[in-house]
This record gives sequence, structure tokens and C-alpha cells, in this order.
Amino acid sequence: MRKIYLIGIGAGDPDHLTLQAAKAIGRTDVFFLLDKGEVKASLVDLRERIIRGYSKPSRRMVTGRDPDRDRTPADYEGTVADWRSRRALVIEEMLVEHLREDETGSFLVWGDPSLFDSSLAILDEVLGRGAIDFEYEVIPGISSVSALAAKHRVPLNRVGQPFQVTTGRRLAEGWPEGVDDVVVMLDAQQAFTAYPDADIFWGAYVSTEDEILRSGRVSEVADDIVRTRSDARAEHGWIMDTYLLRRRTDQ
Amino acid sequence: MRKIYLIGIGAGDPDHLTLQAAKAIGRTDVFFLLDKGEVKASLVDLRERIIRGYSKPSRRMVTGRDPDRDRTPADYEGTVADWRSRRALVIEEMLVEHLREDETGSFLVWGDPSLFDSSLAILDEVLGRGAIDFEYEVIPGISSVSALAAKHRVPLNRVGQPFQVTTGRRLAEGWPEGVDDVVVMLDAQQAFTAYPDADIFWGAYVSTEDEILRSGRVSEVADDIVRTRSDARAEHGWIMDTYLLRRRTDQ
Ligand SMILES: C[S@@+](CC[C@H](N)C(=O)[O-])C[C@H]1O[C@@H](n2cnc3c(N)ncnc32)[C@H](O)[C@@H]1O
Ligand SMILES: C[S@@+](CC[C@H](N)C(=O)[O-])C[C@H]1O[C@@H](n2cnc3c(N)ncnc32)[C@H](O)[C@@H]1O
Repeated sequence: MRKIYLIGIGAGDPDHLTLQAAKAIGRTDVFFLLDKGEVKASLVDLRERIIRGYSKPSRRMVTGRDPDRDRTPADYEGTVADWRSRRALVIEEMLVEHLREDETGSFLVWGDPSLFDSSLAILDEVLGRGAIDFEYEVIPGISSVSALAAKHRVPLNRVGQPFQVTTGRRLAEGWPEGVDDVVVMLDAQQAFTAYPDADIFWGAYVSTEDEILRSGRVSEVADDIVRTRSDARAEHGWIMDTYLLRRRTDQ
Repeated sequence: MRKIYLIGIGAGDPDHLTLQAAKAIGRTDVFFLLDKGEVKASLVDLRERIIRGYSKPSRRMVTGRDPDRDRTPADYEGTVADWRSRRALVIEEMLVEHLREDETGSFLVWGDPSLFDSSLAILDEVLGRGAIDFEYEVIPGISSVSALAAKHRVPLNRVGQPFQVTTGRRLAEGWPEGVDDVVVMLDAQQAFTAYPDADIFWGAYVSTEDEILRSGRVSEVADDIVRTRSDARAEHGWIMDTYLLRRRTDQ
């Protein structure tokens, strides 16, 4: 039976790798990579560095072309689902062509595979199509959320209190109900600027060499974050940032 | 200057340890452990196993007595805050007595230090009291939430959707507003039983040798989970379980 690992590699620091992930990499015969285009070359670099460091000499690498995706669609969920299906086709083809019956293949996933990542759903879709059969295992990784909290040395929750993890798109629709603490990912619109009274713990390229951290009351640090973010984005050609927004309470 | 590491060691599997954590353990002069009483001996075992595996021969270990805590208080937050302060006193004393000016001390934290853990707040409290000065760094770890999702091979969020992380106590007050996906920790009352139509992904002792996993529609699996949980708890003398509750939507 073919075996596939979905391996969380952490959010940027090569030392985020767990021993479990390093061992799975060592057992891998074929690494499957999707080429995300020029802009995210540094992400591809990290993956290759990790593979070089922990894989066996006989391992092969297969690179596929990631289908293009509309980044600012009107129908967000529909567009993602469509893109996911096109991606499943590309992956099915790679697996059928390059992974033999008795081999182990791996996909390296940024951060933690359970957090805003489509790899799991894509593997399920490939399995559901029935053209190829395999077992698969998910190896958890350090998420950008854990990395952000560690760098700011803040807990994500307050004592006994819930927190929400959401997207910039959702936060732009209003502060989520029922929580005072919100972690925001995938924010292309700096939705935090609408909440001047909250405290923000912001980070870009967290745990990489380019890491930028800012924190403070939104009313005091928002301008700096917006400027810093746009400069960094221009310089690198891409940006990944995440933040924790904390509403002040009587507590 | 004294240096302190707060090191996330993952949720049970010794191989959850990251390379970053292993390196910090190797740089540690003194490990500070709080004895949580007999029942959680297996947790203490994991910490000791990890220390034996990655520390330098000259390292010392200092064990303190964790202050007792009322587990079913009327005033939950107040009780936690009080317990935290008593804990800060114990830790201050250990540090003052055992960590020299130029040394590095470490606390090993279960899972990820940013998630429902008081160590960060306690270190801040010790610093705030001013009796001892130190630098400290947080090293993120694999949380029980990431471990649970990996074992069930489910994402925590649905495409573009938020999720909430909360406690059993909160869930017992009602389904959280604004989310269809809820991760529940610290649930001593099996609050999920109130939501028969939801899907549950439940795990106890996740990623340890005693791991138990169950999933399905709550109406179909709740009895089994409640029975399994109570049997396991009786057998081990303690239990740690977490679950993801997913409300069905049209999506
Ligand atoms: C498609 S999601 C993938 C998340 C990933 N699975 C994880 O566990 O972190 C991409 C988003 O994650 C966040 N992100 C990932 N890596 C980051 C980093 N190193 N610094 C800051 N944010 C990061 C950003 O919000 C980005 O928009
Ligand atoms: C005080 S909190 C600490 C959480 C920890 N910092 C983390 O990142 O997982 C303890 C709760 O975490 C969850 N938990 C921790 N380890 C677990 C495991 N191995 N399996 C299932 N749940 C676990 C349970 O909900 C437990 O009540």
C-alpha cells in the first residue's frame, strides 16, 4: 500500500521541525512539491533546506505546477473549492506517475496542516476520486499562531476565556461575537484598524530572518504597522502576517 | 543576566519535541519542575525522559511543590488568579535559591505555552514582584489541539470560516455565537452531549501510548464517549481530553 505523509514543518524557523517530522522525512521516498510561483521562493527554499537536511540520499523530488488562483474573487468559498479541485487533479497525476505501490510520499505543509491549509481536503478529494489508493498520516507542526504568541510572549486566551481564530475578511465584517480575543490570519486589508481601542500583537514573517513584530494599543501603533507592512511587502514581493487582537475588559 | 526558557514540549509524544526545544534543553543549566501530585505521574515521566534525552550532563533539576488548587470553585477566575499568585511565590523562591546570575533555567510546558497554560503569566508576575531579574524566551510547542486534528486528519476550520477555542465550562452555557466549529478543552462535564446534531472529533491522552479517539455524529457516539471516558479516567486516575465540535451547515 502506498503511504503519504502530510508533514507540518512550522512557520519559518527550520528548527520548528519536530523529531516526528524529521523521522517521517527520513522515511520518504518521494517529495511532492507544488511550485507557488516566483514570489514565494523563500518558502520553497525552506522546504528544500529541510529536505536536504533530513532525507535519505535515494529520495526523489517531484515538482508540479500549482494551478493559478483568483486572489480577490467575489465568491470566495466557491473559488477556493474550484481551485482545490484543480489542485487535486494535479496531485493525482503526480502521485499516479511517480509514487510506486510500496513507496512513501510526503507533502511538506507550512505551519500546522490543520490550520487554514487545503492539503488535507485535497488528499481526501484525490482518494474520493478513486484513481489511486493510499494510506495517509498527518504530522502536526508549529503554526504561525503559536509562533506569533511565543515571540510576543502572550497567551492566546485569558484565564478560562475563549478565543476565536478568523480571517481578515471576516474581521472586516465586525468584531466576532462572544470573544474578546481574536487571532487574525489571511488579512490583506488590515482589518484591525477598525478597532482603535483594542491591543494588537502583530507579526510578519514570524520566526524567519525577516521577522517584524509590533504591539501596543491599535490607536497608537496602527499607522506604523500599516506603513511597515506595505514597505515590507514591496521589498519582498509578498507578505505573511498574523495578529492577536485583544479587547480590553474590566478583568 | 539570568535567562529562562519556557519550552513547549508537545502534547504527549516525545517526538513532538522541536529541534528548537531540544537545543534550548541542551543549553539549560537548571530545570525547574513543579510536582503535580501522584495522579499525573506519567506527565512527569515524559518531562524527565525528555530532559534525560537532550540535556547536558552537568544540568541540575529542582523540584518544587505545586500549591493545591480548588478544582471546582464557585469563582473560577478568582480562584485561578489566587492559585497563580501562590505559584509565583513558589517559583520565585526556587529561582532565587537555585539559578545563578549567569545561568539558564528552563520550565517544560505541556503542549504549547500560549494555550490554556499559566506559566507565562506566572513568570510575568515573578518579574513584576522585582525580587529577581531575568530575560525569558518562549519556545512554541505542538498543542493538544494540533495533535487532535492531526490524528483525526481534520482541519480545524472550514474554508474561510472562523473557529473558536473554548472550555467545557463555557460550552455548557450554550453554543458559541458566530462559529460552527468549536474546539473544547478542559471539559470535566462532557458538554458536547447537549449538541446531538453536531459532529464530534474526540481524543483522550492524544499522541500518548494510551490514546483513545472517537468520531461521528454526537447522537450516535456520545454514549460511547461518555462511557469510554469514565472507564479510562477510573483506570488511569486522571484524564486529558479535547474535542472539535462541528455543526452541520448547508456548505
Ligand atoms: C494559508 S494560511 C496557512 C497557515 C499555516 N498552515 C499555519 O499553521 O500557520 C497563511 C496565513 O498564515 C499566516 N502565516 C503563516 N506563516 C506566517 C509567518 N511566518 N508569520 C506570520 N504569519 C504567518 C498568515 O496570516 C498567512 O496569511
Ligand atoms: C491546562 S490545558 C493545557 C493545554 C496545553 N498547553 C496544550 O497546548 O495542549 C489542559 C487541557 O489540554 C487538553 N490536553 C492536553 N494534552 C492533551 C492530550 N494529550 N490529549 C487530549 N487533550 C489534551 C485537555 O483538554 C486538557 O484539559
